[in-house]
Amino acid sequence: MFTSTTDPTHTLDQALRDRARQVLPGGMYGHMAARFQAPQFPQFMDHAEGARIWDVDGNEYLDLMCSWGPILLGHHNPAVEAAVAEQNQRGDCMSGYSPRMVELAERFTDLVPHADWAMFAKNGTDVTTLLCTIARAHTGRDMIYVARGAYHGAAPWCTPHPAGVTAADRVNLGHFEYNDLDSVRDAIRGNESRVAAILVCPIRHDSHRAEETATPEFARGVRQLCDEIGAVLAIDEVRTGFRIDPHGAWEQYGVRPDLTAMSKAIANGYALAAVLGADFLKKAAGSIYTTGSFWFSANSMAASLATIEQVAQPSFIQNLNAAGARLAAGLTQQAAAQGFALDVSGPPALPMLTFANDPDRALGAAFATCAVRRGVFLHHTHNCFIGKAHTPQIIDQILQRTAVAFEDLAMSPQAEGWTPVATSQDADNAKTSKLG
Amino acid sequence: MFTSTTDPTHTLDQALRDRARQVLPGGMYGHMAARFQAPQFPQFMDHAEGARIWDVDGNEYLDLMCSWGPILLGHHNPAVEAAVAEQNQRGDCMSGYSPRMVELAERFTDLVPHADWAMFAKNGTDVTTLLCTIARAHTGRDMIYVARGAYHGAAPWCTPHPAGVTAADRVNLGHFEYNDLDSVRDAIRGNESRVAAILVCPIRHDSHRAEETATPEFARGVRQLCDEIGAVLAIDEVRTGFRIDPHGAWEQYGVRPDLTAMSKAIANGYALAAVLGADFLKKAAGSIYTTGSFWFSANSMAASLATIEQVAQPSFIQNLNAAGARLAAGLTQQAAAQGFALDVSGPPALPMLTFANDPDRALGAAFATCAVRRGVFLHHTHNCFIGKAHTPQIIDQILQRTAVAFEDLAMSPQAEGWTPVATSQDADNAKTSKLG
Repeated sequence: MFTSTTDPTHTLDQALRDRARQVLPGGMYGHMAARFQAPQFPQFMDHAEGARIWDVDGNEYLDLMCSWGPILLGHHNPAVEAAVAEQNQRGDCMSGYSPRMVELAERFTDLVPHADWAMFAKNGTDVTTLLCTIARAHTGRDMIYVARGAYHGAAPWCTPHPAGVTAADRVNLGHFEYNDLDSVRDAIRGNESRVAAILVCPIRHDSHRAEETATPEFARGVRQLCDEIGAVLAIDEVRTGFRIDPHGAWEQYGVRPDLTAMSKAIANGYALAAVLGADFLKKAAGSIYTTGSFWFSANSMAASLATIEQVAQPSFIQNLNAAGARLAAGLTQQAAAQGFALDVSGPPALPMLTFANDPDRALGAAFATCAVRRGVFLHHTHNCFIGKAHTPQIIDQILQRTAVAFEDLAMSPQAEGWTPVATSQDADNAKTSKLG
Repeated sequence: MFTSTTDPTHTLDQALRDRARQVLPGGMYGHMAARFQAPQFPQFMDHAEGARIWDVDGNEYLDLMCSWGPILLGHHNPAVEAAVAEQNQRGDCMSGYSPRMVELAERFTDLVPHADWAMFAKNGTDVTTLLCTIARAHTGRDMIYVARGAYHGAAPWCTPHPAGVTAADRVNLGHFEYNDLDSVRDAIRGNESRVAAILVCPIRHDSHRAEETATPEFARGVRQLCDEIGAVLAIDEVRTGFRIDPHGAWEQYGVRPDLTAMSKAIANGYALAAVLGADFLKKAAGSIYTTGSFWFSANSMAASLATIEQVAQPSFIQNLNAAGARLAAGLTQQAAAQGFALDVSGPPALPMLTFANDPDRALGAAFATCAVRRGVFLHHTHNCFIGKAHTPQIIDQILQRTAVAFEDLAMSPQAEGWTPVATSQDADNAKTSKLG
């Protein structure tokens, strides 16, 4: 399409990295930086189509990262692109709101049972921060409790790395252990009247470890606890939104939060984030002043309306789940055939790949390197993302490539020192593994 | 183009407002909310072209707000739209950075003398927050000093309204008076070793009052003070960037900051924000972890490259300034002809309109209402924005309409009780007025 030659030695990528080192801190920053990926991953992408991406050296990949979440329907989804083109012809960023904003708020409140109103922003961090602010405005309290190790964004109050963060940024933050209701009760004990919100992801998707589904007892327990102490239950669905259940990830447990944060997948790659809230919080949400120069731009809202139309089909999540299950079954079988114990954890559309007996992720990194060299783009410390473009045919193509990648892995130096015997250290990572 | 009928009674706008009240907090939130504007302003826009916008009822306006800043080259600037269309055909939000990011960082560091590196984000608030975080990471200090009443964004640490904000969010914030170097020295006295940064806008553009240009003594004084105490001089050019001097608003004084935040106009309406920094801060900037799902999307970077190509022309600011001067001269003359003392303050491309003897802005609001009814979209408590689409012809068309608006104003009940005698209260608002 755009590039006609391929260069597996990444000559152009390296040249761009050299230039980037001159003008970008650390050579490159942000979650996609190649230094957070396994060796031999490209840094720079040239173009994308459906489930495929091409790096600047013309190498093609079947992409299991979906741009770290935003690409839900594949690149250049025709209905989304048509909606954006039509809106852009009218106007995107105008001196007033577009009707798309009202339509989108109506659509979200129809789709998500707990939502009586919506607000829109640009970043996931915008909306996780808004959850805290709205809960504080409503309750008049200051403390927010989060699970230890959970990722809720990259502002000073929540970034996982401490550089530039002051003690005051975190003084109103408390911590509990995910899926451990007693630890929540212990954390807030004596502080109940200060708890503005419990902010929690619907699954545990911390990097570097297997995903963990919330137990029904935990989900229902935090709901009940919030009700008991008059705190707000705020769910961070920035990563999971539209990939577990478009109506809310905890609907399966009959648990409805008071506030939900969404972003990433809701506009198929166009920049948008949403807060969804229950009626009793509408006044508090209206009392705060928050805004952004581009928060009300219409293109991404038109994209979201077109995205939701596809997501709201009953078959949508079924198809994602089937694609994820097909991938997981194929990968674990391929791993086992080469003597590896691969665990594919989490909801089918958010698969996390971890190997047993791999506490430092050396084997995972080696596999990621083998995969990317064979044309499959995935991550060894972060979950993958499944989208609509991952048709059964695409999953089968991915598996054809990973079959060779596992053969490569079996010949790699990292496989040399690896044994399938799990240590106690990574028992929780290997829980569901076939061999671990 | 899209609408063929006009309805000055705003029937469709009202219907959308009714629907919005059901599903959006406060009926509408954010800086463009009609409740922050003068009466009879529309809330919802249908489309836009060049310097014109059309509301959902088909009423056309010559727009002096430029979407509150972002639209610098007019809506649908051909070069920007072509660059975005070409990039979008390749890919916008991909599983890797695009070469546009390196090109844009190179372009910014070429354009802005103090900038040795760049980072990109989505919101103005993202980058004002980053200025604080980078300064803290570099200095190991916690305090940030800002001018009282200055707007630096809408996160808890900086939003102008306190709902949902905790004391801890502001505990590391100190305040001084704009253009008062002694007040800066007084504010930090005894705390010098805790000052991470002085964060300041290059002009005073607080809402509800006349703009104030920084004096050379103030600009040079804060620069010298930062050097004395080892603090970072951080300039918030989110609103002013590319409208005073693309090389930096304080270049005229020979004052170069260590960090600059930009957003709004840098990609002609596409969502983008930038941090520009001096070499000695590159390591600190690389040490913090910050990111966003859409921060590296390529479309807005392609838009920014095409925008900068036009902005870098030597005639660019000259033309903006000429358009702003033509508008200011016309408006003050028209006001005087009707017996009003209008002050047009600030840099020509960021004109703030205030009337003498109008402490509660009642006359300003009445004029804004008259203007919007005659087809000129402006604001009575916020500065206007001039862009490339404001050609001499468009400025003259605006002035034809405002001439009638001032006639309407002279007949209005608000004019009834108004006298051109300035009170001491608004002396600073009326400083340069012809009649005040």
